[in-house]
Amino acid sequence: MTINYIRGKHPDIFIIADAKRGDIGNTSKMYAKAFLGEMNFDAITVNPYMGADSVTPFLSFENKWVILLALTSNSGASDFQFIKDNETDQKLFELVLRKSQAWGNRENMMYVVGATKAEMLVEIRKIVPEHFLLVPGVGSQGGSLEEVAKHGINKQCGLLVNSSRNIIYADATNIFAKVAGEKALEMQKEMEYLLQKYKVI
Amino acid sequence: MTINYIRGKHPDIFIIADAKRGDIGNTSKMYAKAFLGEMNFDAITVNPYMGADSVTPFLSFENKWVILLALTSNSGASDFQFIKDNETDQKLFELVLRKSQAWGNRENMMYVVGATKAEMLVEIRKIVPEHFLLVPGVGSQGGSLEEVAKHGINKQCGLLVNSSRNIIYADATNIFAKVAGEKALEMQKEMEYLLQKYKVI
Repeated sequence: MTINYIRGKHPDIFIIADAKRGDIGNTSKMYAKAFLGEMNFDAITVNPYMGADSVTPFLSFENKWVILLALTSNSGASDFQFIKDNETDQKLFELVLRKSQAWGNRENMMYVVGATKAEMLVEIRKIVPEHFLLVPGVGSQGGSLEEVAKHGINKQCGLLVNSSRNIIYADATNIFAKVAGEKALEMQKEMEYLLQKYKVI
Repeated sequence: MTINYIRGKHPDIFIIADAKRGDIGNTSKMYAKAFLGEMNFDAITVNPYMGADSVTPFLSFENKWVILLALTSNSGASDFQFIKDNETDQKLFELVLRKSQAWGNRENMMYVVGATKAEMLVEIRKIVPEHFLLVPGVGSQGGSLEEVAKHGINKQCGLLVNSSRNIIYADATNIFAKVAGEKALEMQKEMEYLLQKYKVI
């Protein structure tokens, strides 16, 4: 299995199941067992729509992480994630960030916040200053790594920036592996530069 | 595979993947292909949090259905599904019901609306008078079939009532299959009675 291969060759790599699960408590418990137990992923992305009991079963595994969707990077994010709650004057994704902090902690929960509008990270950092943020949307979806770092970095770095299609679809010929490797290295270099610039390393 | 077995023995049975998927368009397309194409399910439950482009790829298969989560039957439903939008004065699950009607139609989309408070079906039927509703929460989760029928039935019936744990966990001894069969039959009889009562058959 892919995970065993990675664990064997590169034991330090953090492996995320971007599975976007979330179901009634009973079923979430089974998903959690499958992904974080049996398959031994380090983390799983979880959809908040069904609320606390759909998320908390994923939080009961030691040294494992829930990465909760708050603000996604796709076009449909604007359909519901920005609706503003009458009572609290908060947007839905902001309520997800606030409310869910009572379900887990900084050591077992991160948040997906899309990078397509990096300046929104300023407001998001006010709600979750310390949590790690998983930032998709850099590359194919249009976000800029420089902007994400500028607005989202904290003292521990606090950012996991994801670039998938930009790397895995970089080339479709028989030198695919080489081109994908170069793309990944290019991004890693830029990250290293930004970490130095913002004095995280 | 289970599906092939059911298709072979009971070709008329409607098979739902209660998978609660939903991802960026590109990924939803792959999930749709897997569940509605390769695995040949009749329908799949989909989570609306990520909006239009996460749902529409599931709607492009002929004679297949999306069953979109609107109001779920679990306790966490109250965390976000009831927040009231400033602008439209609609609750989140109501906005899901309204907005998504532009993505599909009555022939390829149904909605999950939990049965734990059956009287809410009155309001829901005002928004979606014609669509089929998949109603979980009868049985283990506390909803009543009689109440669901009273408030949710329409001229075409318009209800798919789901009872899972009440049947599959009915017995854990070696007469499991018999007891589960009896439970299912009991529910089917009650449904038949209600369909006659409300003059659907």
